[in-house]
Amino acid sequence: MSAKVKVEAYPYVEPLREILRLRHFFSSATPKTIQAPYTPTPVTVPGLNPKMTMHQLTQYQDCIEACQDCAVACDACADACLSEQDVKMMMAECIRLDRDCARLCQMAVAFMASGSRFAYQVCELCATVCEACTEECSKHTHEEHCRQCAEACRRCAEACRQMVATA
Amino acid sequence: MSAKVKVEAYPYVEPLREILRLRHFFSSATPKTIQAPYTPTPVTVPGLNPKMTMHQLTQYQDCIEACQDCAVACDACADACLSEQDVKMMMAECIRLDRDCARLCQMAVAFMASGSRFAYQVCELCATVCEACTEECSKHTHEEHCRQCAEACRRCAEACRQMVATA
Amino acid sequence: MSAKVKVEAYPYVEPLREILRLRHFFSSATPKTIQAPYTPTPVTVPGLNPKMTMHQLTQYQDCIEACQDCAVACDACADACLSEQDVKMMMAECIRLDRDCARLCQMAVAFMASGSRFAYQVCELCATVCEACTEECSKHTHEEHCRQCAEACRRCAEACRQMVATA
Amino acid sequence: MSAKVKVEAYPYVEPLREILRLRHFFSSATPKTIQAPYTPTPVTVPGLNPKMTMHQLTQYQDCIEACQDCAVACDACADACLSEQDVKMMMAECIRLDRDCARLCQMAVAFMASGSRFAYQVCELCATVCEACTEECSKHTHEEHCRQCAEACRRCAEACRQMVATA
Repeated sequence: MSAKVKVEAYPYVEPLREILRLRHFFSSATPKTIQAPYTPTPVTVPGLNPKMTMHQLTQYQDCIEACQDCAVACDACADACLSEQDVKMMMAECIRLDRDCARLCQMAVAFMASGSRFAYQVCELCATVCEACTEECSKHTHEEHCRQCAEACRRCAEACRQMVATA
Repeated sequence: MSAKVKVEAYPYVEPLREILRLRHFFSSATPKTIQAPYTPTPVTVPGLNPKMTMHQLTQYQDCIEACQDCAVACDACADACLSEQDVKMMMAECIRLDRDCARLCQMAVAFMASGSRFAYQVCELCATVCEACTEECSKHTHEEHCRQCAEACRRCAEACRQMVATA
Repeated sequence: MSAKVKVEAYPYVEPLREILRLRHFFSSATPKTIQAPYTPTPVTVPGLNPKMTMHQLTQYQDCIEACQDCAVACDACADACLSEQDVKMMMAECIRLDRDCARLCQMAVAFMASGSRFAYQVCELCATVCEACTEECSKHTHEEHCRQCAEACRRCAEACRQMVATA
Repeated sequence: MSAKVKVEAYPYVEPLREILRLRHFFSSATPKTIQAPYTPTPVTVPGLNPKMTMHQLTQYQDCIEACQDCAVACDACADACLSEQDVKMMMAECIRLDRDCARLCQMAVAFMASGSRFAYQVCELCATVCEACTEECSKHTHEEHCRQCAEACRRCAEACRQMVATA
């Protein structure tokens, strides 16, 4: 009931979840659809590990998307928290972590897209902040925006950890 | 032929185009799939125009995605340009506009996701920069990264203009 | 009394005001100390208006500093607001404007430092947001962080307007 | 001679060095001038280590300034590099590191100003990137913008390391 009201209040995050689902489907379909034009041998991406494999590249792209979604979810959650009843007691910490998490996710996207040699280190720190934000938002899952944000942060932390594991 | 080589060099932008296609399909399907839970009457989003309609909200989301894609395409293009043969003569201006465009797109995403009252003005400026970047990248469409970047910028400029038109 | 307690709580903003004072002194002293190595004729800055005069360049630098100070003051104010008694009623709007203002100031610095052709347009938008933030923070001048933030925003808006006037 | 020409071309970085010198003077004078209003006992900053001492806070502020200067120097250097003769062979790596370094410095400022609990970790990563950028820019000290950038990066890396050491 309360969740329904929230969904009405933040309808633009609902479609994001649709996209996530589509992306999941798409991600698993990826090898089949794009394998053809690529040789299975290592390829070169400027500024990145020159021996990057297709498997690594897929995770790279997954990680960009997870960070994009997480940044949006955190910014939306922080703003929504400011309209909640008990901002100080309940939401102040959530807003602080949303702020930090959105900033790091945004930067992680930029570092990956730019092919920076520091992309792995930025993603590692991003995972740490995402985990802290997941934990905090999970305390407020009665708020739809916090529930969705916790989900986005959890997925992003996982994607970042997997990305780092391929370094 | 040259394009094929480029595609191998930047395989992570190829799947992005797949997503764009999926999103397009998804975007047009959106009204049908998510109309049910929402009333067709105006809804309230904190910090945004309180009379925002479903139609406006869909454009809002389109605009977030277009800006996310454009920021990634610009960052990737700028880095790829640095590896091209004639950076100074051909690519310096492209790199400068990619840099400006990526920054504005990234900020536009943050302002929209945060429901800022200044989201429209940021998107208006974003459209201006995207248009300049489209023009510059369109001069180098023999480079796959510039061709894809020009496409992403054009789509983003359109999405931003449409977004602003709903203000 | 309450202000005194605040000063203790945020001592790192106090020295910033010292710097502002030093900078003011330095700014007016600038022509004398650095005039020697430069000819009074127009100089070329890459990416900027090629006929930029020394007078314009001094304002450029003033504007960078004003934006740097304002971004810090806004970030500090937003965080401090989250610890105040009545976040929802009093501070939510202040936090939202601090957030927007810090983002735009940070970007204005980057555009000016990069010599972007869009620096003027970013500064113009920055001035608009700074003015909105000045107005909001001025309602809470009993809080030392809001008082200092209002001051930093007012100075930044002025510096941006002057910068734009030289375009 | 060549340096002199460069100074004319980028006069707005010259005054920055003046400020750095003033700041150094000011920094050492800081304890004397601002000790009076503060008790020498630990003070509380929201979101930061609650037992932060005056000594730590002074370093905090030093670090904010060093990061601000470094971000500006890196953005200015990257843009100036794009106008150099041999962008590809000599300057491409410099531009990439300037870009990464500017981004991290900018974020470090935001995390410190916001009193984030992750400020130390961001500064640690910032120091790493600053050191890489110092090394690269030091190869091109015949270019005034690279020489100044190397200096700003070295100072910033030091400030970040000292900041982290107080954690």
